[in-house]
Amino acid sequence: MGSLPLDASSLRPLDPEAFSGESRAVVNFLAEYYRDVDKYPVRAAELEPGLLRKVLPEAAPENGAPLEDVLEDVRREILPGLTHWQSPSFFAYFPMNASTAGFAGEMLSAGLNVVPFVWAASPAAAELECVVVDWMGKLLGLPQSLLFSGGGGGVLQGSTCEAVVCTLAAARDRALARLGHENIMRLVVYASDQTHVTFQKGARLVGIPPSNFRVIQTSAASGYGLTADAVRAAVDRDVARGLVPLYLCATVGTTGLGAVDPVRELGEEARRRGMWLHVDAAYAGSAAICPEFQDHLDGVELADSVSMNPHKWFLTNMDCCCLWVASPRALTSALSTDPEYLRNVGTGGGGTEEPAAVDYKDWQIPLSHRFRAIKLWVVLRRYGAVGLRAHIRQHVTAAKWFERAVTVDERFEVVVPRKFSLVCFRLWARFPEDDAVDDLNRELLAAVNESGQAFMTHFVVDGKFVIRLAVGGAMTEMKHVMDVWELLQGKAEEVLRRHQI
Amino acid sequence: MGSLPLDASSLRPLDPEAFSGESRAVVNFLAEYYRDVDKYPVRAAELEPGLLRKVLPEAAPENGAPLEDVLEDVRREILPGLTHWQSPSFFAYFPMNASTAGFAGEMLSAGLNVVPFVWAASPAAAELECVVVDWMGKLLGLPQSLLFSGGGGGVLQGSTCEAVVCTLAAARDRALARLGHENIMRLVVYASDQTHVTFQKGARLVGIPPSNFRVIQTSAASGYGLTADAVRAAVDRDVARGLVPLYLCATVGTTGLGAVDPVRELGEEARRRGMWLHVDAAYAGSAAICPEFQDHLDGVELADSVSMNPHKWFLTNMDCCCLWVASPRALTSALSTDPEYLRNVGTGGGGTEEPAAVDYKDWQIPLSHRFRAIKLWVVLRRYGAVGLRAHIRQHVTAAKWFERAVTVDERFEVVVPRKFSLVCFRLWARFPEDDAVDDLNRELLAAVNESGQAFMTHFVVDGKFVIRLAVGGAMTEMKHVMDVWELLQGKAEEVLRRHQI
Repeated sequence: MGSLPLDASSLRPLDPEAFSGESRAVVNFLAEYYRDVDKYPVRAAELEPGLLRKVLPEAAPENGAPLEDVLEDVRREILPGLTHWQSPSFFAYFPMNASTAGFAGEMLSAGLNVVPFVWAASPAAAELECVVVDWMGKLLGLPQSLLFSGGGGGVLQGSTCEAVVCTLAAARDRALARLGHENIMRLVVYASDQTHVTFQKGARLVGIPPSNFRVIQTSAASGYGLTADAVRAAVDRDVARGLVPLYLCATVGTTGLGAVDPVRELGEEARRRGMWLHVDAAYAGSAAICPEFQDHLDGVELADSVSMNPHKWFLTNMDCCCLWVASPRALTSALSTDPEYLRNVGTGGGGTEEPAAVDYKDWQIPLSHRFRAIKLWVVLRRYGAVGLRAHIRQHVTAAKWFERAVTVDERFEVVVPRKFSLVCFRLWARFPEDDAVDDLNRELLAAVNESGQAFMTHFVVDGKFVIRLAVGGAMTEMKHVMDVWELLQGKAEEVLRRHQI
Repeated sequence: MGSLPLDASSLRPLDPEAFSGESRAVVNFLAEYYRDVDKYPVRAAELEPGLLRKVLPEAAPENGAPLEDVLEDVRREILPGLTHWQSPSFFAYFPMNASTAGFAGEMLSAGLNVVPFVWAASPAAAELECVVVDWMGKLLGLPQSLLFSGGGGGVLQGSTCEAVVCTLAAARDRALARLGHENIMRLVVYASDQTHVTFQKGARLVGIPPSNFRVIQTSAASGYGLTADAVRAAVDRDVARGLVPLYLCATVGTTGLGAVDPVRELGEEARRRGMWLHVDAAYAGSAAICPEFQDHLDGVELADSVSMNPHKWFLTNMDCCCLWVASPRALTSALSTDPEYLRNVGTGGGGTEEPAAVDYKDWQIPLSHRFRAIKLWVVLRRYGAVGLRAHIRQHVTAAKWFERAVTVDERFEVVVPRKFSLVCFRLWARFPEDDAVDDLNRELLAAVNESGQAFMTHFVVDGKFVIRLAVGGAMTEMKHVMDVWELLQGKAEEVLRRHQI
């Protein structure tokens, strides 16, 4: 592990002894990190942009350094500049769970480093992916038609945006095969004003004209869910203008507010209009492993595709997004490749809706992806459905507690009723001027985040600035939610006092 | 670690003690795997598709199981069904390097599990990415104009296909901003018959009409490189028909044969026609850290974008693809998003070509990606440029040795002169009938792969079936290349004897 120039024979990059020793050192480093993670400010201090760039050398080192030196630099230069997503007091965005089992799966994925891009390039890896996506689908209560065992099937992608791009391309190519490519100008896609912004990005990526992206307004009356009536009206207008409704994105658990679009109503409307229905359950899909949340997916058998991210709230380290489709052929028609240099590794299937051997290169944007299946499989094996449901329910319970505390405190209000583990609230709703209330809440949020004791983010709905508390960290327990409520109350007092309110 | 149902309080998914213990068990498992990897058949036995699916339960387990049970299942059910990409005798496709340093970096990435999708969501992670892509660019001899330090910049994506999709979208949107979206039907993209198939997939994904995808023929005369004359002729034809040349993909080190497109000539042609030039150096880019290979990138200052994959031959576990662009703004114009719920984490930059703070969500398809920078950074720190050059050179030396052995043996011929570490050869070129020669080579390749002692793949060029030996595994040393040559000679004798030749 010296720092002298290495020749190739001394490099031995996978020498088992060196591998063991150095890997254990990293394990120790991370265990210490988890032990101390709540000692760091949750959100990175407001560093000056470019700070790390100034500290680090301008070029890669000529000579290698011992691992201890590298870890010391991580400790000294990098950790202070991170936002600690694994802190138990991280309540921002949505959670991004790490776990011991997810990490074990990551290690197996990275260590074996196989690439099941065609079935034969690692049959067990491709098959394990088929198995775990079916397992996950069953846990969520998805219909057989979305599982391999029922003629559909799934894939583990890296992100919802990729899932959206792939299914948009599938829908687009299905439509254009009928209409001719020049009709790409007539294709229209629909989402609500609460739909994740990556849907718009995905639609642009696949060449849908930006003018054909419909953002349909939602309101408090429907809990910010997209109504079938609103979709119908928008589609009618477009059809009257000679446009072609292509794709409707429904969200179960929106990013801003955790709102739920009514899947059955929207699915019926999509069927009537020949639109592809995608259900994005990136965050809330994890909750659907608990029967008490499966109603939110009622009507999902009408969907052409469904996605959810185990890397959010399902103890599965980044990255992992389950995508299920009712028609694998629609997906692979848009994404397949068949060059000569892949042809020698004979693949089965081909003509049937349930291919005997799945070539995942035709189910995703890239040719190859990491062995994500083993990660999700280890999580499922290690914790079991029972353990994972307990994980979800403890956060829902804590969020319920927080929602109630906010409701009871007359200085605060809950802005949108909580459905999962996200609580959207604000300070002192009865203050006369909305702008002033917004400013108070901005100050409150800044004060909380600057304290380093917790990190939350905000949203704006109906012009109101709202604070979001997303419960779901791997280490987050009831006590952390109680602590953050105490912190909020204290900071609220300070803010109100400062304004002599 | 018991198998009893867990409640949330006993799950403790990031308990430092449990994390340490279980992670060490996985490290031991992998060290043992590396110790024994050459005992497995390199390519997975020809299993019956669906075999693993039949062995595993149909649904996820209700109750968790101890880690030992999970690892035992990996050993028993999964390892036998894998193709062992880390075997020293894996010579198929291109290498997919794992290494102790790459693994350490993966562990840090997975363990910290931060998401630098906007700068402020983990400033040090975003900045480290800026630093390492600049380091890598300098190692490869890229011009300042492609680095952050010179007004360009880079990102670590997951795959070349993603890099191609993003740059195609950037080129498309730049053109359509001028022409109007309806002119998407007039946009034409160019590649050679040796270009990786994911380019065609990428072009389809971004909505380029399939009829506007030009595959330009190459030949032995140019070493299967794309000539500027051929591009010019194709572009002239298209322009005469009122079409708009959009994007030209040049490859340095093609997948089939390791051919090199002349970047300077193609760059000049692209400039004249206002086309985006992308240089795909996925595999051979790693070699360019050695000065003796940098000539293959001559003219790269004319490129709008360049990509290479450290996850291939650069000791960086899957996945990691460096993408550099000359104009970050062209990229981010096509890929940016700016929703309210990301707005509170104030970002700098914005108007300038070198933003103070880089929001990587606007540089890629997904909103967020893993902390890949720390992985590549650990590889660079741990091995240094000296160690990495030695890694590359030992494989080039071994490939040279193999090429010479093939040349000297009159039963074989080298089909295309070797440029890097890929040797393309075949058995007994002077056999009269081409079909018969192809059959002999097919038999030879099958015999080698079925032996389990090595794994190679094939290619077809000018109608000839060619065997590819891609040297570059993390454990592959000269002795393994000598062994595979001995194996090939033995199997060739058997094949020839069987045919009484």
